[in-house]
Amino acid sequence: MPRVSQDHLDARRRQILDGSRSCFARFGYEGATVRRLEEATGLSRGAIFHHFKDKESLFLALAEDDATRMADVVAEQGLVQVMRNLLDASSETSPALGADWLGTRLEVSRRLRTDQEFRERWAQRSEQLTAATRARLLWQKQAGNLRDDVDVDVLTAYLELVLEGLLSHLAMGLPAQHLRPVLDLVEESVRRHRTR
Amino acid sequence: MPRVSQDHLDARRRQILDGSRSCFARFGYEGATVRRLEEATGLSRGAIFHHFKDKESLFLALAEDDATRMADVVAEQGLVQVMRNLLDASSETSPALGADWLGTRLEVSRRLRTDQEFRERWAQRSEQLTAATRARLLWQKQAGNLRDDVDVDVLTAYLELVLEGLLSHLAMGLPAQHLRPVLDLVEESVRRHRTR
Repeated sequence: MPRVSQDHLDARRRQILDGSRSCFARFGYEGATVRRLEEATGLSRGAIFHHFKDKESLFLALAEDDATRMADVVAEQGLVQVMRNLLDASSETSPALGADWLGTRLEVSRRLRTDQEFRERWAQRSEQLTAATRARLLWQKQAGNLRDDVDVDVLTAYLELVLEGLLSHLAMGLPAQHLRPVLDLVEESVRRHRTR
Repeated sequence: MPRVSQDHLDARRRQILDGSRSCFARFGYEGATVRRLEEATGLSRGAIFHHFKDKESLFLALAEDDATRMADVVAEQGLVQVMRNLLDASSETSPALGADWLGTRLEVSRRLRTDQEFRERWAQRSEQLTAATRARLLWQKQAGNLRDDVDVDVLTAYLELVLEGLLSHLAMGLPAQHLRPVLDLVEESVRRHRTR
């Protein structure tokens, strides 16, 4: 019996994720058929669905990748920096977080309302981003950089709401470079205010 | 030849809009077939498409209705009040601006990226809201209520970005009542700051 190493399994999983991300971005969630996923990953459906239960699980794994990557940036630089990176990526048609990929989020978002199981699985993926944002804000508060007249939970929800707006805006392919000073304003509005 | 009064035409147009709004909200944009639009409006396809060129035009007329209604509120009370009204409507499952109707916006938003003509028609509908928001902010600035260290265009784009986030959030059917203090923060962040 051949022994399949963990490294090999991880590499295979990565190959599936990378290929299917491009495939979803290009054809949309519905348009990414199993046949197209096979072509994009260079693997058979058997191999793909050995690693992921179904197309939805594959998509949610990609969403989780995004959340993990964003949470890493949040921990170091905050959620506003995540938004700046999204602005940069959108103008570069980045395959990782470009408008085409973000468009698939919109495609599935209507389903979030009608499919409770899907909503719960999706929510699990975004929890880590909320936790990272909240932790960063608490840390900033202790360092005396945060405004102290508004609860940290409100500030967290505020930043996440702006992120939702930005994701939606970019996914629709609307012009976005004018949003750069808007993000400066958002960042400043959670900071401690000195007298102007 | 029967003379059809303008009042009659207007009433018929209103009947079509109201019925089709419920239909889109219930079945989604794609799911709102011509047959279902007939049932929801109580009119034949001939009558419906006498008033509106096609389903897309009907949908865009509804989006324009929303924009007009929002622009009216903006002129009197500002864009943050529009957002508060959206929060209220979402908890009441309002047929006019409830989550089901907002969900159709998400459904078509992916198309905005790929269909340039649709994007231009959509943009025309939202221009009046931008214009109303900008006018309101300029008026507030002259009254001395607005912060003067950030350009009015940036503040307009900021409020619209938060609105996009809220529309997306509500359309996904996510819990939203915790966003009320967030909207207070948004309102306060465009105001002139006195020393805290």
